[in-house]
Amino acid sequence: MLKILSIFEPIREELEFVEERLRETVEVEYSFLRRILSYLLDSGGKRVRPALVILASKFHDSSMEKVFSLAASVELLHTATLVHDDLLDGALLRRGSPTLNTSLSPEAVVLVGDYLFARAADLAAATKSVPIVSIFAQTLMTICSGELSQVCNRSSWRRTKEGYYQSIFNKTASLFAASTEAGALLSGAPAPTVEALRAYGYHLGMAFQILDDILDFTGDEKELGKPVGSDLRQGTVTLPLLLFLETHPEVDILPSIFNEPDGREEKTQTLIDMVRNSTAITSARDEAERFTAESKRAIQGLPANKHRQAMLDLADYLSERRR
Amino acid sequence: MLKILSIFEPIREELEFVEERLRETVEVEYSFLRRILSYLLDSGGKRVRPALVILASKFHDSSMEKVFSLAASVELLHTATLVHDDLLDGALLRRGSPTLNTSLSPEAVVLVGDYLFARAADLAAATKSVPIVSIFAQTLMTICSGELSQVCNRSSWRRTKEGYYQSIFNKTASLFAASTEAGALLSGAPAPTVEALRAYGYHLGMAFQILDDILDFTGDEKELGKPVGSDLRQGTVTLPLLLFLETHPEVDILPSIFNEPDGREEKTQTLIDMVRNSTAITSARDEAERFTAESKRAIQGLPANKHRQAMLDLADYLSERRR
Repeated sequence: MLKILSIFEPIREELEFVEERLRETVEVEYSFLRRILSYLLDSGGKRVRPALVILASKFHDSSMEKVFSLAASVELLHTATLVHDDLLDGALLRRGSPTLNTSLSPEAVVLVGDYLFARAADLAAATKSVPIVSIFAQTLMTICSGELSQVCNRSSWRRTKEGYYQSIFNKTASLFAASTEAGALLSGAPAPTVEALRAYGYHLGMAFQILDDILDFTGDEKELGKPVGSDLRQGTVTLPLLLFLETHPEVDILPSIFNEPDGREEKTQTLIDMVRNSTAITSARDEAERFTAESKRAIQGLPANKHRQAMLDLADYLSERRR
Repeated sequence: MLKILSIFEPIREELEFVEERLRETVEVEYSFLRRILSYLLDSGGKRVRPALVILASKFHDSSMEKVFSLAASVELLHTATLVHDDLLDGALLRRGSPTLNTSLSPEAVVLVGDYLFARAADLAAATKSVPIVSIFAQTLMTICSGELSQVCNRSSWRRTKEGYYQSIFNKTASLFAASTEAGALLSGAPAPTVEALRAYGYHLGMAFQILDDILDFTGDEKELGKPVGSDLRQGTVTLPLLLFLETHPEVDILPSIFNEPDGREEKTQTLIDMVRNSTAITSARDEAERFTAESKRAIQGLPANKHRQAMLDLADYLSERRR
């Protein structure tokens, strides 16, 4: 966390304004909702997406007021998807803190997510930019249809690498790409700059999610704030496992994990251990590294200022993170 | 249904274009989602909200393309809230057809609703009007916070008439009012016209919901497509019951219905029968009638054309409906 604060130092003030805007959205009349929203924002993460919006807006003259609204909008959209995600996964912990599922009825959790979507849409509209609102809506569609396809293909072990990449784009990279694209657009940057920044966000998001999927295998339960191998336990096949199976065609317990309830727990644990101790982890890291390198390459033509430097540092930081 | 088609005759072509726009939104790549969306649109209702958008846009020159997008957006927003509502209520029937709950996992139902919100936001953005998007987002916030307050106050029998009116505004009248306001705004109508049309939508929506709440007591199970007295059975106190209690202070089984599980079913049925057979029904109808009259009064200063006539007829039609 210290490291990321120093990377974000050039936009520290801006991030504080965004934080203020997020606080304002919490000031709703209804005290029950106010408490929940405060809780969600306080247990919040590193604000990577708002930082991406701000950084991407810095290559041209921006109305910072609008940029702050957009940055807050992106963070709330992200929070809304997490709230619904955790409900769908039945997750009790997120970033080590109890999720809303532990204290609210499923009804209330659905509605809190919906409310956050609405708030996020309202903040997107506060940019007074129709293209921004379109990007917002399209990204939400991408995220939702991706989630739907995941829910419906869950417990299907037949997954291709292509399907995997599509799903991590839907789930994560689409919002990273939308953040940098919209930030750049809002600043009035010319098309090639917008395109470069979008490409940065896209590749960064892909690397970020692959890393997340690796950590699900290699991480420490305490640091992850959830059990190791959660994805596979929930029926989601990710890159490390796909790479492992490519090099170990003789391991064929996956169909039986998905199709036979008997001994599922033991078989899953065995498979997780096999993947953890295989070279698939290194191969997956290489894959993430390629996306990280590509994200940095995308912005190499932009002016070499402190904001570009922060973006390069952020890419390195995210690719090295261990939780 | 025949009657409403004749009321909507002046905008029949426009409604067909909206239907086409709704069909287009169904044309998603993912076949599973496509089937669900088709099902939702086919089992759709009377398209009252799209009709309100179109009618309200007719008092000034409008770009009909944008009006169609807005009308489709409003209908999808409405559909999204119904999908989440039915999930929250555990409803198995809606308009006599099975709800998504009967065939999909709760996860998938949440996501289908989210996807529809996103589509609706995208269509709102297609109007290229920032004020329209703002109205859209604000209305969604109103609906969600209203639902949240209902979910959280459920099983509380202490409800005031004021609380009731606030809740039917949140739930229903806010979207009616947004439909007419946004339709008028999009046509570039001057402020007093926009205000008159918004007032029409607001009062119409209030009357509509009161009627709905009366029908929940007086309706025929088969026509309603759900059990009589569903609201009370789910812990929601509506106008007919509030009016009944005003004139029958001696009836004090409500607290025990909410607080004691023993014999709840019988006590609830007794109370429903008492309300059904009381003058509270007539009083509630009078109340709805006042809102209907007010909706008609709101547009009396507008040009006396066929569109205003359709709005007056619609108000009468909705106030007389029996299902």
